Amino acid sequence: MSLRIIATGGTFDKHYDELTGKLGFSDSHMPAVLARTRMTIKVELELLPLLDSLDMHDADRARVLASCRAAPEKAIVIVHGTDTMKETAAVLGEVALGKTIVLTGAMIPYEIANSDALFNLGFASGVAQTLPAGVYVAMNGQVFAWDNVTKNRAAGVFQPL
Amino acid sequence: MSLRIIATGGTFDKHYDELTGKLGFSDSHMPAVLARTRMTIKVELELLPLLDSLDMHDADRARVLASCRAAPEKAIVIVHGTDTMKETAAVLGEVALGKTIVLTGAMIPYEIANSDALFNLGFASGVAQTLPAGVYVAMNGQVFAWDNVTKNRAAGVFQPL
Amino acid sequence: MSLRIIATGGTFDKHYDELTGKLGFSDSHMPAVLARTRMTIKVELELLPLLDSLDMHDADRARVLASCRAAPEKAIVIVHGTDTMKETAAVLGEVALGKTIVLTGAMIPYEIANSDALFNLGFASGVAQTLPAGVYVAMNGQVFAWDNVTKNRAAGVFQPL
Amino acid sequence: MSLRIIATGGTFDKHYDELTGKLGFSDSHMPAVLARTRMTIKVELELLPLLDSLDMHDADRARVLASCRAAPEKAIVIVHGTDTMKETAAVLGEVALGKTIVLTGAMIPYEIANSDALFNLGFASGVAQTLPAGVYVAMNGQVFAWDNVTKNRAAGVFQPL
Repeated sequence: MSLRIIATGGTFDKHYDELTGKLGFSDSHMPAVLARTRMTIKVELELLPLLDSLDMHDADRARVLASCRAAPEKAIVIVHGTDTMKETAAVLGEVALGKTIVLTGAMIPYEIANSDALFNLGFASGVAQTLPAGVYVAMNGQVFAWDNVTKNRAAGVFQPL
Repeated sequence: MSLRIIATGGTFDKHYDELTGKLGFSDSHMPAVLARTRMTIKVELELLPLLDSLDMHDADRARVLASCRAAPEKAIVIVHGTDTMKETAAVLGEVALGKTIVLTGAMIPYEIANSDALFNLGFASGVAQTLPAGVYVAMNGQVFAWDNVTKNRAAGVFQPL
Repeated sequence: MSLRIIATGGTFDKHYDELTGKLGFSDSHMPAVLARTRMTIKVELELLPLLDSLDMHDADRARVLASCRAAPEKAIVIVHGTDTMKETAAVLGEVALGKTIVLTGAMIPYEIANSDALFNLGFASGVAQTLPAGVYVAMNGQVFAWDNVTKNRAAGVFQPL
Repeated sequence: MSLRIIATGGTFDKHYDELTGKLGFSDSHMPAVLARTRMTIKVELELLPLLDSLDMHDADRARVLASCRAAPEKAIVIVHGTDTMKETAAVLGEVALGKTIVLTGAMIPYEIANSDALFNLGFASGVAQTLPAGVYVAMNGQVFAWDNVTKNRAAGVFQPL
């Protein structure tokens, strides 16, 4: 089994900039995160431009699709912002790539106390190896089909339509 | 989907006692851990006596088996020490319970820097929902059948026989 | 020896709101922080409205001054935002209260990885007990007189004028 | 102002070894800790052999004394185990070195949740710059003279004799 992890930024990977006092992006946390996971399967990390998912445009989603298409792995985890995760999932879901693609993210950045990032990455890395080919969103300890998921912004959780 | 999590202690749940300077067990971290995961599926936490898995005897494994047998859930995650995880897995695996039972744990306690605990719990919580009925060990981002796994103590990783 | 700690917010006490994705204020971290410090001297915590120091006005600084004046303790630490720390220090410094008042804060919020908050609070709590009466800024492991300090925003450090 | 920090190990610097499941010593955390403190004064870090203070013998204390004697700095912080901190303090206190020497440590290792290490280091780094020449123990947010301090092991705190 081998796994590709495609990082696109999102809350998961945000970094506090002490000079500006703002959360943004710097070097990805993913290399440190992956070392911490102690995964022994073959894991390929692909870093795309790190974006807040509210700043993702069609071209950015097309790039994610291109990465999935080009990937030799059959199991792919995409770390993505939560706000437009379902839009990217839809772009991928409408194409039959014959791979298991799982989008996940975090409600609290990896580097902030009480973050769900590591749990979500574990969850997604598990179901990416066990679900049939298709496109899924994995958040809140739950697997959603790409075309039956929405973020409930008021509650801060994902749920079926 | 509903999920039972059975905590038995192990490295995952160890606590540093500042009076003795030793790692042991106090209140389980699991309630705080589960809150942090933000899981929205129904999760039932069952706390068994917290033990170092080197201190687990037949009666302790029988108790884990009894809990699995009694559980109404079809998906069960067992948080367990790594040193005898495969022994407990064997006790469970030799009985056909018709449930998906996934044993996991941690190489570094949840409360210590760089812990793999949260990742492993996420991984196990995912595959417990997606694998067919059976007994599995989920460590190092990998799923092992209960009768084809061993801990390589020198390397600190799980691998097939 | 007894110590008063006056919390006014600032970067030190910021909290990530997972619904809005923004850093702001919620319940102060200070009660948890103080428990963690294991201080055995008498410590009185006074929570003022938690503000970003860029949002502090004259009335807010007057309230800090009133708190210092009313305090029975001779040693006071004020947790404050870094951007206008010297302005509040000046309001306090121009009045001779006969107390040792030390302003401190953080470049990284307490709840974010790699925070300097706990170090700075320790530093300030130490020098508040050992310096003569007066008003000081304690940042970057250094004590500054209230009228000879400025924040170098480009470098993110405090320095003498 | 310049500050020497002498690391001798102790609970502060203990590291969890995931292969043995025991707390011991590996590379010192101090370089990372010092980066995190963002101190802008000149800080010289001197790493002595890292020891549990219960394993410290006369020769080890003599080495600490030699380091203090040789140090060009007038302000010295010694990071030390708590169990025999007062013994080392006594060795230093009986010699008039004309320097301000402050011993500190931690009840919880730096790398374990809820550690007091960073607070204590901040506290000690502050009072080392502000106290008159002499030898002190700084723990629990309190300064103790070297000849009037003891660790209350049952309560896990330092107190005067």
